[in-house]
Order: sequence, then structure tokens, then C-alpha cells
Amino acid sequence: MTREIIIAGAQMGPIARVDTRESVVARMTTLLEKAARMGAQLVVFPELALTTFFPRWFMAEQQEIDVFFETQMPNESTEPLFTRARSLGVAFTFGFAEKVTENGIVRRFNTSVLVNIQGEIVARYRKIHLPGHSEHEPWRAFQHLEKRYFEPGEGFFETTDLLGGHFSMAICNDRRWPETYREMALRGAEVATIGYNTPLHYAQAPEHDHLQSFHNHLCLQAGAYQNGLWVVGVGKTGVEEGCGLLGQSCIVAPTGEIVSMASTTGDEVIVAACDLDRCAEIRENIFNFAKNRRPEMYPLLSAV
Amino acid sequence: MTREIIIAGAQMGPIARVDTRESVVARMTTLLEKAARMGAQLVVFPELALTTFFPRWFMAEQQEIDVFFETQMPNESTEPLFTRARSLGVAFTFGFAEKVTENGIVRRFNTSVLVNIQGEIVARYRKIHLPGHSEHEPWRAFQHLEKRYFEPGEGFFETTDLLGGHFSMAICNDRRWPETYREMALRGAEVATIGYNTPLHYAQAPEHDHLQSFHNHLCLQAGAYQNGLWVVGVGKTGVEEGCGLLGQSCIVAPTGEIVSMASTTGDEVIVAACDLDRCAEIRENIFNFAKNRRPEMYPLLSAV
Repeated sequence: MTREIIIAGAQMGPIARVDTRESVVARMTTLLEKAARMGAQLVVFPELALTTFFPRWFMAEQQEIDVFFETQMPNESTEPLFTRARSLGVAFTFGFAEKVTENGIVRRFNTSVLVNIQGEIVARYRKIHLPGHSEHEPWRAFQHLEKRYFEPGEGFFETTDLLGGHFSMAICNDRRWPETYREMALRGAEVATIGYNTPLHYAQAPEHDHLQSFHNHLCLQAGAYQNGLWVVGVGKTGVEEGCGLLGQSCIVAPTGEIVSMASTTGDEVIVAACDLDRCAEIRENIFNFAKNRRPEMYPLLSAV
Repeated sequence: MTREIIIAGAQMGPIARVDTRESVVARMTTLLEKAARMGAQLVVFPELALTTFFPRWFMAEQQEIDVFFETQMPNESTEPLFTRARSLGVAFTFGFAEKVTENGIVRRFNTSVLVNIQGEIVARYRKIHLPGHSEHEPWRAFQHLEKRYFEPGEGFFETTDLLGGHFSMAICNDRRWPETYREMALRGAEVATIGYNTPLHYAQAPEHDHLQSFHNHLCLQAGAYQNGLWVVGVGKTGVEEGCGLLGQSCIVAPTGEIVSMASTTGDEVIVAACDLDRCAEIRENIFNFAKNRRPEMYPLLSAV
């Protein structure tokens, strides 16, 4: 029995601040339908897929911020996507801003969910590595207030069984950290799905702006190869509210090779047939962790 | 005061089994002199630079194996290199097979040393990640018996002060592991020097043979970028005793960009002016460990 899964990345062009959830979900549904026509069994959408990337603005009023958050999932706005996916028998994953009340305390996370072909949420991941800053910094061309608007997730990079494989989620900045992929792989992941919103301009080191795409692919490819994982990195891209966002969403084989890549800065579907058994080519050989890792030599990696 | 250091990589072509240490050291001295003419203050030589890559052969007799080992360093054969480097005021690092007797027990390591401009060994590193296998496997085109001929090093990726900077050493297979660079960086390293001998043919997965150079650069570049380190990767290359070895030795900036690369499969010097202050562009921003790492979320990385 083959363990090949056809996976799609559904890259998304800009979302304006005024765009309704319904209009965004309609775009996502169109992408999902196209992906299904291309054989996809799983569709990966970007981080914060339902709204514009709102951490670029400083907002003093929590009420104004909360407009961008979802208090339940699925909800009325996203139900059409869940329904269509279920009718097509396609699994999917996407990111959104999540507001939950736990033990009477309101908490906000940068979250993604994994939805099976029955339309059930089977995994939820809350972003661990929040980039940016927590205070208003007017000197910047735009803000990156993730550290203000979200609290960091406390879950690990756990794996979920889906479609006969083992999946882990990460979000945007998580993908830059080799720790992310290694924790996933040590927990048995075979596929990492990663949504992102990455501004082309990096205020603290603008001399690296031209390297954004290189750095994105470098991290995704190294993460794939050094762990024998399939990696699916999918961005929101194009010029969104005046801010250029990185595209070149891609699917990376366990060899580190990019096997499918977006070439527009708009809504675009990429697909690849991902044979999960190919993970073993790497994981049973050069990166055979049990045989070749030396965790006793890495005391600082987990040291708090 | 600038913290720019001119570093050279001294790639080496094949060394035959019959070549004497003296002839190899003469080649190394020539490379070092050329590097010095190009302004180098530090010259990085390959792994096991003094001999052919002998783990490719199964040898039953310890006496036959021990021919490839050094019992002291410097020794009569290598003294000319130490002397010339001292006279030129150049630091250097190279790898060799080390046989030591500690508490009456003979131990063998795949070792590298770092030598300051006074010709003194200021650091010694024993390879932690030994690839290959420990038993004779005649089905292979050639052996890779590092796990048989060496015991794994027990040191950490410590840093050494040299030329106003912080240096760490790694050897060959170490460079494939993101843990290597992260441990170095957490200990304050600014430059990683890494020698290698990498066969182009990988017996367990020959379908990856054409990816050897890609994988080499992917790991070196990701290690540099994800840690804000200068990385100097230097190979023994060419067809050595019938076995093709990877070249494309390179110097990688903390941005992950290759700034100098060898383009032959023989003895060749590459140089780059490495401004150690550029590490901060990465380490004080996106990879600001204190601000952005989440070690409590990586429990498995150091778990034995």
C-alpha cells in the first residue's frame, strides 16, 4: 500500500482591512475546490488566513483589536469552507487569531487548526515563537505587534494522525528555528504544515530585505532535510495595505528539494504528491536519530 | 576598532595512501603561504588533513590502522607547518587521527586543533558525530568505518578566544546537525571552522548522490543564518584512491550567504574578510536567543 498523499498549498494574495470574513472564506473555498480538482487530499492555507495581517498596526483599544479574533471555530463565517471541504472529502489547515476564555481568563493566540475529511478539528496549535515587539514603535514603517496582541502558545510540536500519516503544525516565525522541526521529528512527524505572513521589509536590519525569500527557503529546506520531513510552507503574499509580503510558497521533499513553488503574488494553488515513505531515506540513514544523535552533548538546547 | 578577520579555507586535493606526511605537510605549507599572501590571519584545513581518508578501507590489524594516527601534536612531520605559520604570524586549524594513552588506556579520536599565531595549540576538538558503520560491510563500494576506528568525542562545542573573536570547531558529519551550530552559538561562538571528507557516493541512498553539494551548502548556510555565525567549511576533494570527494569548500556569512567558494577539485585557497560584528545583525534581531527562543518548549532536544 502506497503512503503517497497529494498535498496542496493554497497561497493567498492580500486581504484588505475592510474585507469581510465571508469574502475571504469564499476565496479560500475557491482555492480548496481548485486544489481538489488537482487531486489534493490536504490543503494548507496561510497563517491568519481570515483577515489582514493586523499586527502591523498599533491599536490602543482592545475592542478594535478583537475585531480580528475568532471566539469559536468553526463559526458562521467559516462554516461554508468546512462544509465544502467535507463534501469534497478534503482535509485542510489554516491559521486565525483565536480568543478564548479559560477559567474566566481571556486569552489570545495566533492559532492554526487541522481539519480532517469529516470536517472535524483534530488538532489545534498555538504559535510558540512570537516575533516582533510589544510596545508601539512609531519609528518603524509599520508595526509588528505579535508580542502585544498574542500570548505565546504552551503546547509542544505534537503530531496528529491524518490520512495515514503523522502531521505537525507550525506558524510563520516558528519555521526559522531548527528546534521546531527537530521536536516535530523526534515526535514522529512526517509532514510539517507551516503558514506565514512575512513582511519583505525588516525594520531592524533592512540591509537583509533582499534576502527574505532566501532565508525562508533556507529554513524550510534545511528543516526538511535535517529531519527527513515533508515541509509545506504557505504564505499570504502581495502588497497588503501597503506592506509587501513574501510569496514563493513551496512544498519541500525530505531531501530538502523544493518540489513545488508558487510564482505569483496572489491566490495560487501548488500541489505535490508526497510519498511519506520517503522520509525513511533520510531518517533511517544519515539522520538516524537513535544511532547518530548525541543528546548528551547538547545540554544547552533545552536549558531554561 | 574593527573586528574584521581575514580567514582562508585551504581546500586540499586527494592524498594517496602512499603519500608521506612530509609531502602532505609541504603541500599544506604552500597553501598556508599563499593564504598569508592573500592576507589571511587564520587558515582552515580539512578533516584528517595529513593522510588519505583511511576509514574507506577495512583493516583487521590495529597495527595497520595505527599507521594513520598521530601520537603527539605537533610532531616531527608537522613541525615545518607550525614553524612556517609562526614565522608568518598566521593561526591555523586542521584535522588528524589522534591516538592518545589516558590512564593506561589507548584511545583514538577524529580530532582537530586550533593553533594561535605563536604556534601554540590553544584548543582541541574530538569529533562528536561519527558517521558510517563499525563492522565490515563488503557489499559497499567502499567502507566508511569511522564508528570502528574512532571513539566519539565527549567535549562540548566550546569556544576559544583567538584574534579578538570567539571560535568553535566541528568536523565533517557534525556540520549536518543543527544542534552543533546552536550549541556553539549559545556558548558565544562567532566563527565555526569545519573540515570535511565527504564521499560523493552514499551507499545506503545512492539516489541522493547528486545532492551532496546541495546538502553540504544547505547545512552550512542554515547553520550560519540560524545562529548568526561565520561558517568556514573546508574539504578534502577530488578523486582519492578511486573515491570521489566533495569540494566546493566555502565561507558563509552570518546572513547565510556564501561569500567565497572553491571551484576546483584540488589544492585551492579561498579567503574572505569576516567582520565579526556582523553576527549581531542576526543575533540581536531575529535570532535574539534570550528574547525569542523557547527552550521550555524543546524538552526532547537534550533528552538522553
